[in-house]
Amino acid sequence: MYTPAIIFKDDKLKIIDQTLLPARLVYLEIPDIATCIEAIKTLKVRGAPAIGICAAYGLFIAARSLSDKTYNEFVHYMDTDAALLFGSRPTAVNLGWAIERIRLIYQTRADLPVSQIINLIRAESIHIHEEDIQACTDMGYHGLKIVSNPCNILTHCNTGSLATGGWGTALGVIYAAQKEGYDIHVYVDETRPVGQGARLTFWELMQNDIPCTLITDSMAGSLMKAKKIDLILFGADRIAANGDVANKIGSYSLAALASFHKIPCYAVAPFSTFDLSLLSGDLIEIELRKSQEILHIYGYNDNLSEFADVYNPAFDVTPAELLSGIITEQGIISQPIAKHILSFIE
Amino acid sequence: MYTPAIIFKDDKLKIIDQTLLPARLVYLEIPDIATCIEAIKTLKVRGAPAIGICAAYGLFIAARSLSDKTYNEFVHYMDTDAALLFGSRPTAVNLGWAIERIRLIYQTRADLPVSQIINLIRAESIHIHEEDIQACTDMGYHGLKIVSNPCNILTHCNTGSLATGGWGTALGVIYAAQKEGYDIHVYVDETRPVGQGARLTFWELMQNDIPCTLITDSMAGSLMKAKKIDLILFGADRIAANGDVANKIGSYSLAALASFHKIPCYAVAPFSTFDLSLLSGDLIEIELRKSQEILHIYGYNDNLSEFADVYNPAFDVTPAELLSGIITEQGIISQPIAKHILSFIE
Repeated sequence: MYTPAIIFKDDKLKIIDQTLLPARLVYLEIPDIATCIEAIKTLKVRGAPAIGICAAYGLFIAARSLSDKTYNEFVHYMDTDAALLFGSRPTAVNLGWAIERIRLIYQTRADLPVSQIINLIRAESIHIHEEDIQACTDMGYHGLKIVSNPCNILTHCNTGSLATGGWGTALGVIYAAQKEGYDIHVYVDETRPVGQGARLTFWELMQNDIPCTLITDSMAGSLMKAKKIDLILFGADRIAANGDVANKIGSYSLAALASFHKIPCYAVAPFSTFDLSLLSGDLIEIELRKSQEILHIYGYNDNLSEFADVYNPAFDVTPAELLSGIITEQGIISQPIAKHILSFIE
Repeated sequence: MYTPAIIFKDDKLKIIDQTLLPARLVYLEIPDIATCIEAIKTLKVRGAPAIGICAAYGLFIAARSLSDKTYNEFVHYMDTDAALLFGSRPTAVNLGWAIERIRLIYQTRADLPVSQIINLIRAESIHIHEEDIQACTDMGYHGLKIVSNPCNILTHCNTGSLATGGWGTALGVIYAAQKEGYDIHVYVDETRPVGQGARLTFWELMQNDIPCTLITDSMAGSLMKAKKIDLILFGADRIAANGDVANKIGSYSLAALASFHKIPCYAVAPFSTFDLSLLSGDLIEIELRKSQEILHIYGYNDNLSEFADVYNPAFDVTPAELLSGIITEQGIISQPIAKHILSFIE
């Protein structure tokens, strides 16, 4: 029912080229690891969980082309590809997490012939994908506990079936509410500069008959003041051990405005998005993207844009204190989040 | 030195077509009132003070074409044009204020021949323009009292020489700081959906060698959290008697985020922007604009956009309590603003 961003069938990997949405829905085949890396870099596939799944399948595609290699050659080529893949986007933790799961297989099974290692990598990739589908379903139903009925929900960026293997993280909660007959309405902010809200979430919700209204990012505050927003839900790209959440630029502003207006605000993410090696969000590397991503719609000529100073971080960090909680596949981590994360992990 | 948005010379009115900036700097002649109304509606000229000035000159252009009419015919045609002009944009108070100043002339001088009334209208239009130039200079210097040195300033929309008759309101303070040798740096938010920040302010500041960085609207909060912003300055389109400020959509979010982060935030506007007939900002009419203004960059086809629900208010209202003060040509109205406004008026 939900349009899948990633399809793996008959050992072929296909992804929606999300840069063409909403004008055209086109599935792109990923025949090799170079195409996979390029697809992640250019945001053809995006969303932390989807990036992880795509990376795992990408490594399977890479492995499959190495079936005639010795074990040592195989590991050498796989490590090279994994390193290139790892560098394609720095902030989403799921990328490194999925790569490590695949690496663990080939690095620990020197006892097996390469062809069998390739089979194990295939199985692990599918497993990562299936786990994410289940995690999405579970997050959706856990999230229902904090959705009122009726409910006006504000969401940011895209966190639905285009961003994950399943029905999504924050949008998963919204889909669960729809499925259970809740009377919901969603405000979708456009999420400049790439427009994941306007291009992807707005399209995805309309496809799924969920009542929704598009706004600019700058309208969120005045809607909160006018009491038009009951709940704010967004996803996460990396969550530190203390519960600080790195997510799409603009998430922090929403959380701060939510706190100011006393509106509940939750991040929704599976445990694959947690990076317990980082004690706080201050340690999360924030990807800086090119100025042209913001400038290109405004008609600056190349000469002028060359001298233009544009600050374009793809993410910001919301301190755990500003969140009402984090919705995971194992339940809701409530305040104090830093303390409760530990009890979920143990 | 500052590129004027409106030039009136040898009885000819020319305006910059701001919809073509920054790609091309083109002055457009306004030969008749219909062109003037169209220019205001389509944002070729925008900014509350500039709209007022352009409207006054537009009425002079209209009056000039009526020199062969009787007084009664003249008043009839002028009233018709004035009503059409008044309806071109609802939120900026300067429009109605300028129109009323011109109407007062022709409605009270039935004793004069029409040709002399036309001369009086010419003089009053020029007077409105010159008053605004002086008001801008005075606002700029009054504003210096609250600018630290060095200072990182965040501004919204466009409030400079493109928005006024002079060097601007909020940007006027910035130009005054530059002139007095302050070490300033300006963060310019793009101001979706029309992009007055990205297209106009960013261009205007670069033209005038003021160090500036372009950001998306959604980055303001995280910059405040990172203590990169010392001061927030924006303009106003209409200010109620209690000091509530209607300004470009997104101003409220900035003021709320400023309050949350304890950063000073001022509106900068001349007294022509005050509407003392309205007791509070809740009574200010907010212009709703077309969905296509937000949607058009995202590749929605006409079929899909027809059913898309898009909320596109051009303005929001910032309650006076959230502002540190209002900078006017007569000085800074500090808190409690509602009480202090009265002492300025008296």
